Amino acid sequence: MSTASEAMVLLSTEDGIATLTLNRPQARNALSVAMMTEIEAALDRLAGDASVKVVVLAANGPAFCAGHDIKEMRSLQGREPVAAVFAQCSRMMKAIVRFPRPVIARVHAMATAAGCQIVASCDLAVAADNAQFATPGVNIGLFCSTPMVALSRNVGRKQAMEMLLTGHAVDAATAAAWGLINRAVPAEKLDETVDGFARLIASKSPHTLKVGKKAFYAQVEMGLDDAYDYAAQVMTENMLARDAAEGIDAFLGKRHPVWQGC
Amino acid sequence: MSTASEAMVLLSTEDGIATLTLNRPQARNALSVAMMTEIEAALDRLAGDASVKVVVLAANGPAFCAGHDIKEMRSLQGREPVAAVFAQCSRMMKAIVRFPRPVIARVHAMATAAGCQIVASCDLAVAADNAQFATPGVNIGLFCSTPMVALSRNVGRKQAMEMLLTGHAVDAATAAAWGLINRAVPAEKLDETVDGFARLIASKSPHTLKVGKKAFYAQVEMGLDDAYDYAAQVMTENMLARDAAEGIDAFLGKRHPVWQGC
Amino acid sequence: MSTASEAMVLLSTEDGIATLTLNRPQARNALSVAMMTEIEAALDRLAGDASVKVVVLAANGPAFCAGHDIKEMRSLQGREPVAAVFAQCSRMMKAIVRFPRPVIARVHAMATAAGCQIVASCDLAVAADNAQFATPGVNIGLFCSTPMVALSRNVGRKQAMEMLLTGHAVDAATAAAWGLINRAVPAEKLDETVDGFARLIASKSPHTLKVGKKAFYAQVEMGLDDAYDYAAQVMTENMLARDAAEGIDAFLGKRHPVWQGC
Repeated sequence: MSTASEAMVLLSTEDGIATLTLNRPQARNALSVAMMTEIEAALDRLAGDASVKVVVLAANGPAFCAGHDIKEMRSLQGREPVAAVFAQCSRMMKAIVRFPRPVIARVHAMATAAGCQIVASCDLAVAADNAQFATPGVNIGLFCSTPMVALSRNVGRKQAMEMLLTGHAVDAATAAAWGLINRAVPAEKLDETVDGFARLIASKSPHTLKVGKKAFYAQVEMGLDDAYDYAAQVMTENMLARDAAEGIDAFLGKRHPVWQGC
Repeated sequence: MSTASEAMVLLSTEDGIATLTLNRPQARNALSVAMMTEIEAALDRLAGDASVKVVVLAANGPAFCAGHDIKEMRSLQGREPVAAVFAQCSRMMKAIVRFPRPVIARVHAMATAAGCQIVASCDLAVAADNAQFATPGVNIGLFCSTPMVALSRNVGRKQAMEMLLTGHAVDAATAAAWGLINRAVPAEKLDETVDGFARLIASKSPHTLKVGKKAFYAQVEMGLDDAYDYAAQVMTENMLARDAAEGIDAFLGKRHPVWQGC
Repeated sequence: MSTASEAMVLLSTEDGIATLTLNRPQARNALSVAMMTEIEAALDRLAGDASVKVVVLAANGPAFCAGHDIKEMRSLQGREPVAAVFAQCSRMMKAIVRFPRPVIARVHAMATAAGCQIVASCDLAVAADNAQFATPGVNIGLFCSTPMVALSRNVGRKQAMEMLLTGHAVDAATAAAWGLINRAVPAEKLDETVDGFARLIASKSPHTLKVGKKAFYAQVEMGLDDAYDYAAQVMTENMLARDAAEGIDAFLGKRHPVWQGC
């Protein structure tokens, strides 16, 4: 990535925990085309880095993410470039869901529209209790139709509709009660809580996490019979892999497992 | 509508907020064929009235709605008329879900069986804290099979099964915690809370609300890839419509938008 | 069933309430092939016993169920026997979901992996407040991919992912808040609470319960239109059956119904 691009998305890795930080603070990390391109590139790079075991998706500045870059959107002429923006954004969100390791959102502040969608798209999310969540597109005549794809797969229908129809923000405690995030914690505990999840997950077999995450989102869309047929196959393959043998032997032998990642 | 029909379903509109009031209080607003026919006609009429921006579905009398008219049901001879009643009721419920503006249930008292289903079918629901919700068909040998279609799309499986298998009523606070309603409020705050939601929603672009509501219920039934393909198309069309341009310009110009409804 | 098999799964029936008790306490009721075979046989036997109106699924010993028998799993050679175990386990779980009467989990202690899946697969679940729930396969390199089929159909995605990725146990109060169980009660109230649900359900028409349970799990997988078409047919058939006529007549006549079970 170029220096210019690194300015918009920061990457750091420590102990197998990669942190991808949205870094357009003055723009409330709005998802311009350039910003989304950087995020996609960063996810691609991390996906190919075997040392990365888990990703924390964080942000700098007064907001976690304000959603699309409205000024840029408004400047687009005609259907094609508009369609391209929403297609890219949807591709980026699916890249989080399909990312071959767990992704944890670290939400220190307001997450709005596609910013709220990022949170909903991550596998886990921890927020500071002063963070807020909103899908306020309805206020500017542009319903949060792509954000609601992720939102409505995290929270109940009445709750999603309340956010979408009113545009009102919900606080972190409400978001936790509704299932949009896993924890609302005091701001000074945010890093500790995120780090606790990240280190714990990084201690597991990367192979097992990859297999399990992929299977989770696949089976959840199936009917019960298909889901069981599929999951039983996945679990059979998983059982025959080295890390399961090692994990079980370590468990039975009361020792720590040494993962080989396959 | 005739005077006779107006007696069963009352309609009034103020400031773009239509109120459809079930008005068979002595029968606990039981859904006789005549009553359902009136509700369907009222929804049809409201759907064609461009001045209506949001609908409040309310009720008069000691109950919100007791469900089907059991005496009438029992008097039906043979399969055809029974099937016709359930087909009509399902059509009416889908007419709420497909209604081209948001529908808010104002639940002042007990909502039972198909009455509970009406609440579950609305986009939003506010209840007085003395209201209750039940699917007690199991008590009379007639499982609430059509009500559960709506119920199980609002609350979790264990919770839906508890209501369906026991027939027990849950109070409004529990219904809110489970996601069946948005708010449980003191009875004296019911109108104020419903009105707050209704006025807020009526201030949005009717075009945007229509597009967004339709897309919500469509995408929620799709797999993730299809949902994103569809929602990205919807959002592209939405962005190219006048109200989005106006809404964004108003937002950027720090002024109130003037919706044209297209 | 043989005496040997009765030792692993105990069956008793009183007042139409059958209790199926996992009885391998020293192995924390681990689901060996022999154990699963016994459970399947017991469910088959109960399904064919018209006197049984509801099943309580309970367990003896320090744990409710620890999931698969890990030692046995590890001893299997090659793909076939491993695949056979997961296929059998999935078949057993589906047998609970498809069991033609309601099944209530009585969870007195820890339910882990496939043990947690049993709880999620039951129609209702009541737990002692010292019980815990976990899907810790990730700790031994074997993601809980089949348990998550049931888990993710009870709780939200973020919550399911937290259990699956961390392997951490959640307490009964949390499980109730998330929708995995219906009630967390003090241990000394467990039997009373389970018995209350069981007796209540046993007082309903077995025919109605069978029809309703089957329809619940069928419709929940359908889109709205198909779900209503299907449920309206089910409810029409239900209405034309004797127990609905009896139930309605009893209700209108203010007397207790006498079910004929058809």
